[in-house]
Amino acid sequence: MQTEIKKGKWKKNFSEWLSDIISEAEILDYRYPLKGCGVWQPYGFKIRNNTLKIIRDLLDETGHDETLFPLLIPDNIFAKEAIHVKGFEDEVYWITHGGRTELDVKLALRPTSETAMYPMFAKWIRSHADFPLKVYQAVSVFRYETKATKPLIRVREITTFKEAHTAHGSWEDAEAQVKEAVEVYSRFFEQLGISFIISKRPEWDKFPGAVYTLAFDTLTPDRRSLQIGTVHNLGQTFAKTFEIEFETKDGGRDFAYQTCYGISERTIAALIAVHGDDTGLRLPPSIAPIQIIIIPITFKGKEAKVNDVSKEVYKWLKTAGFRIKIDDSDAKPGKKFYNWEMKGVPLRIEIGPKDVEKKQITYARRDTSKKGTIPISASLFEDVKKILDQIQENLALMAEKNFSELICIAKDVNDAKKLLESDIGMVQISWCGEKECALELEERVGVGVLGTPIDDKWKIKAGKCPICDKKGIETVNLGKAY
Amino acid sequence: MQTEIKKGKWKKNFSEWLSDIISEAEILDYRYPLKGCGVWQPYGFKIRNNTLKIIRDLLDETGHDETLFPLLIPDNIFAKEAIHVKGFEDEVYWITHGGRTELDVKLALRPTSETAMYPMFAKWIRSHADFPLKVYQAVSVFRYETKATKPLIRVREITTFKEAHTAHGSWEDAEAQVKEAVEVYSRFFEQLGISFIISKRPEWDKFPGAVYTLAFDTLTPDRRSLQIGTVHNLGQTFAKTFEIEFETKDGGRDFAYQTCYGISERTIAALIAVHGDDTGLRLPPSIAPIQIIIIPITFKGKEAKVNDVSKEVYKWLKTAGFRIKIDDSDAKPGKKFYNWEMKGVPLRIEIGPKDVEKKQITYARRDTSKKGTIPISASLFEDVKKILDQIQENLALMAEKNFSELICIAKDVNDAKKLLESDIGMVQISWCGEKECALELEERVGVGVLGTPIDDKWKIKAGKCPICDKKGIETVNLGKAY
Repeated sequence: MQTEIKKGKWKKNFSEWLSDIISEAEILDYRYPLKGCGVWQPYGFKIRNNTLKIIRDLLDETGHDETLFPLLIPDNIFAKEAIHVKGFEDEVYWITHGGRTELDVKLALRPTSETAMYPMFAKWIRSHADFPLKVYQAVSVFRYETKATKPLIRVREITTFKEAHTAHGSWEDAEAQVKEAVEVYSRFFEQLGISFIISKRPEWDKFPGAVYTLAFDTLTPDRRSLQIGTVHNLGQTFAKTFEIEFETKDGGRDFAYQTCYGISERTIAALIAVHGDDTGLRLPPSIAPIQIIIIPITFKGKEAKVNDVSKEVYKWLKTAGFRIKIDDSDAKPGKKFYNWEMKGVPLRIEIGPKDVEKKQITYARRDTSKKGTIPISASLFEDVKKILDQIQENLALMAEKNFSELICIAKDVNDAKKLLESDIGMVQISWCGEKECALELEERVGVGVLGTPIDDKWKIKAGKCPICDKKGIETVNLGKAY
Repeated sequence: MQTEIKKGKWKKNFSEWLSDIISEAEILDYRYPLKGCGVWQPYGFKIRNNTLKIIRDLLDETGHDETLFPLLIPDNIFAKEAIHVKGFEDEVYWITHGGRTELDVKLALRPTSETAMYPMFAKWIRSHADFPLKVYQAVSVFRYETKATKPLIRVREITTFKEAHTAHGSWEDAEAQVKEAVEVYSRFFEQLGISFIISKRPEWDKFPGAVYTLAFDTLTPDRRSLQIGTVHNLGQTFAKTFEIEFETKDGGRDFAYQTCYGISERTIAALIAVHGDDTGLRLPPSIAPIQIIIIPITFKGKEAKVNDVSKEVYKWLKTAGFRIKIDDSDAKPGKKFYNWEMKGVPLRIEIGPKDVEKKQITYARRDTSKKGTIPISASLFEDVKKILDQIQENLALMAEKNFSELICIAKDVNDAKKLLESDIGMVQISWCGEKECALELEERVGVGVLGTPIDDKWKIKAGKCPICDKKGIETVNLGKAY
């Protein structure tokens, strides 16, 4: 897999860049003989694991319990919730045979787990004292995508589906849970340095069965919006279908109020996309499998000292808890630099004869390419930690800058079109709130309505609806979505 | 799920005991509407996670890389290795439809991952320098079991399949890898306090496609052997089928030499089985989700002090790294004792007014039911640690004693039958090495041949083959297997 990535492609030809870097950095191998299915290789698997650890910790801290539900859902259970099944009918893989026997009831591979989980919720929930129920799982789900597949973005086996499902005793409690979910995901993406805008999806684009859907969108270098997380208030739709009934405090009966929320490996796609550059990956230290790479720069006759000092520095920093590796292979330093830069290692430490002499290390930051030296002293750990923290922060700042430059307010339909044809990825415009106007807007601008932003900072000053000229009562975001 | 487990069943009616305890301790809920599929509940999921952590650490330490391969295998790839596919043809689930479309090539749900992994190995391996390749994954695999299913032991979705796959440049290297795998699994089961005997399975019972199969068997309280791990030397069978070819050191060509080895949630079944008692679970501290439960024993007027001291002790021990919980619910102490004993928490700490007065804690060990006191002092952490270490060791010793009492040497066929009808779960007998004799032995004794033990300590003094009366050249183990 030595297909050197072509320079200058990150922004110019993002799609090709993404495929190349996923392959060259050995994140996933999509040469698996089934379309839309890739193999997580060791380096990619570690990125995935570190990312999952962050979301798991956030969920555990907020009282969610990890569980694992079966993959297979019998047809008669899956089909129970009519709106839901309608939304997925073209995407579900069906098992019809076990061995050489045809099954009595065909089995769905979960495309998402509502219908696997909620029959069990009905068994677990008896009274108001059983609330809140907050569980999650991180699993593979399957969707028979007929559109062109795309590494990490549009796949048939979604291998990293982290879905949380909750049940509550009132609409208010479910609303509070939606807020908590938004908060958890916001903190998650912040720790990854991924900027986002949260939109309430339009009625006609919400999750099948939900009362409403909130979505986290980020923007890729090719100016497309990428949905990286969703939060749904399910109301009592599923609870009524699956009979999740409970005894209320005053002895009455009611159906549970539910929410669910999910993220997927699109998080990893976003991570790669927003921090990348023409040289390859730039991984935030928070999830980098290797945070520091040490490269001994040896010259004939001075190998021993350089190698000794390198190993010592390695040992100190390893013991201090950094994810660190020493590359003492036979390759030339330049090739090593290239390789670890391409793989996105945040910090490179070089140790040569001059460094040994001066009792220092030379470092190079992956985010800025800046080099510097640090004395080898008792404060080495703190000094390195500080630089990694700066890299973490700076990557997020740079990504935030790119992100905000891709969003722009449009005055009218023509302005929106012009902006989206230039350097803009998402336009914001006033809207009267009528579905007809939104659909006409979509058609005339030629991109999709992403919904209405929920944060005040993303709401624009009310203007006129560009279609009907009536008063705009909401901000609507438009963009070409993946 | 308040189906109080019936006393005295662990040994007398193990099968029912196992189902009851899995349900009552909230490990898995098998009321999922599909046979052979259960839901891992939070408490069970944590046991599973802690167990997986041990094996992951052992594999990582020995240079294995974690990966994740697709679940779906196209029919034309799956069918390539004829012996292998023959072995699984009655057990594979087949996907025939995506949405409402019939698929051109039907897709197998992996029953194990050789045929998913090895086409990729063929792409990754070019020369002898690419060896050894050692990867593993922890995933669900699927088998359409037609026999009666059994919680954790015989299921249709095997949710906790940890499979490792390796490739090497020579038969010798593959043999060395088999040794390493045996060593890794031995240490794994030792850390769980599960006793085992390793047998080379007879030719006619080896893994489909392997040169030979080694298996780890333990014994359950109902005197049945339970296969909890297997290690296969695959030779070049799959390498030839999937063209895993490489350039040798001297410039020639050869096919890779492969091994694979796996464990499953049967490990958890064994854990529950060998350490359980009539009261419920007894979990080794190494994997207990809660290692210590603190129960404040409050009396009217003295609640404040007891609760304060309990919280302090909790905080100290929590900070020290123990997995600990305080049960300050409204339930009566007796009910709390019952609940946490049933759930297998290794150590209970009680803190009452007398303890507060004497600046001590009272403890009760789950393994022996013995109680004692420890002064609340600077050495509290060490004292508690010592007790937990003793519990860990003692559970393993007790399990080992039970295990060895279930194995016995048989003189002849009648002796073997008699032993297996009494209190013995596995008999050892001399064998001439001929398949015909082994099969007749199986038929006449009425149980299966498990194979020949590989450790010297399990080899018995050579006698005569009980069937043909010729010289016994090997020890063969017989038992009723799950």
